[in-house]
Amino acid sequence: MTGYPLPIRRLIAEFARFPGIGEKTAARLATFVLQASETDMAGFAQSVMDVKKKIKLCPVCFNLTERELCEICSDQSRDKGIICVVEDTDALVAIEESGGFQGTYHVLHGVLSPSEGIGPDQLRLAELVSRVERDGIQEVFIATNPSVQGESTALLIKRMLEGFPLSITRIALGVPMGGSLKYIDKMTMAKAIEFRRGV
Amino acid sequence: MTGYPLPIRRLIAEFARFPGIGEKTAARLATFVLQASETDMAGFAQSVMDVKKKIKLCPVCFNLTERELCEICSDQSRDKGIICVVEDTDALVAIEESGGFQGTYHVLHGVLSPSEGIGPDQLRLAELVSRVERDGIQEVFIATNPSVQGESTALLIKRMLEGFPLSITRIALGVPMGGSLKYIDKMTMAKAIEFRRGV
Repeated sequence: MTGYPLPIRRLIAEFARFPGIGEKTAARLATFVLQASETDMAGFAQSVMDVKKKIKLCPVCFNLTERELCEICSDQSRDKGIICVVEDTDALVAIEESGGFQGTYHVLHGVLSPSEGIGPDQLRLAELVSRVERDGIQEVFIATNPSVQGESTALLIKRMLEGFPLSITRIALGVPMGGSLKYIDKMTMAKAIEFRRGV
Repeated sequence: MTGYPLPIRRLIAEFARFPGIGEKTAARLATFVLQASETDMAGFAQSVMDVKKKIKLCPVCFNLTERELCEICSDQSRDKGIICVVEDTDALVAIEESGGFQGTYHVLHGVLSPSEGIGPDQLRLAELVSRVERDGIQEVFIATNPSVQGESTALLIKRMLEGFPLSITRIALGVPMGGSLKYIDKMTMAKAIEFRRGV
């Protein structure tokens, strides 16, 4: 991309740092910037900076928020007695979009991963235990991913909360809605059979 | 994407306006912004605005430039007697990257397209004729795309320059390097046969 003036080459390089953006795509995005109106692009640049300046973590559940408490923690209609523990805010958003959960969350911002040096102290586990102690929680619903790391994190949370008078639940494993049994992987199929229920 | 705070939703919407960026990719890019350092993202936002504020068109060839004359027009080592006519700056960059051309350019910023209302007056054709008249050009090398619109634009340029004492050339058509003849489309193959040369 040596034929472009320096500011365009620099913008292409900036776009190419984003995940999944190669140099060809970066050049296409830079061309869009070049052709867009200055007003539109000022709005875009402002949106980028707004995310950096306005977004912080909710001090209760560590969800992303632009207010003091996050939208969910400050919503009086949510059931404060149930905490759903998730690895990250993407999982939180996926659960919110399902509309199937009316409690509150606790975002760990990671899972146990010894190979990456992530132990219990790097996650928001002490804060989870404090909430359970302080707020009289009735249920901790662990919705970490059904991966090795997610499972070991779930197991650790279960152990840390064993002394408390509450129920600890785990997100259900099984075949996904709309999927064909023909294409389900063996592990999922085995779990779907193991956890079969009466109808 | 309703579960994210407003500034993040707004940034996702901004990213989704770029060509080829769907909502999932936009969310991934916004997550990257969220996790990147504020310094890095200030640099990114600045790069976007630099492109809008600093880039203009070269008054001679209409290439993109941040200086008065573009890099190529102001390069004393380039052959000012040859003008390569291209549709857009992407074509210019592709030709520059090949290293096979040492003359100057003329960027039309479009091709004839009656269906889109683009006629001769919307292209930089009058300026091309002025350059030929004024600068004693020996060769105009037409490198518009080998498409219907590119060909009709090439034909128009040929007609406009017919009275001048110069050679008018057209970029060669043929099979691409490294390609397998098996997969070449019929039109290209027919041209590659028509334009075969002695070895």
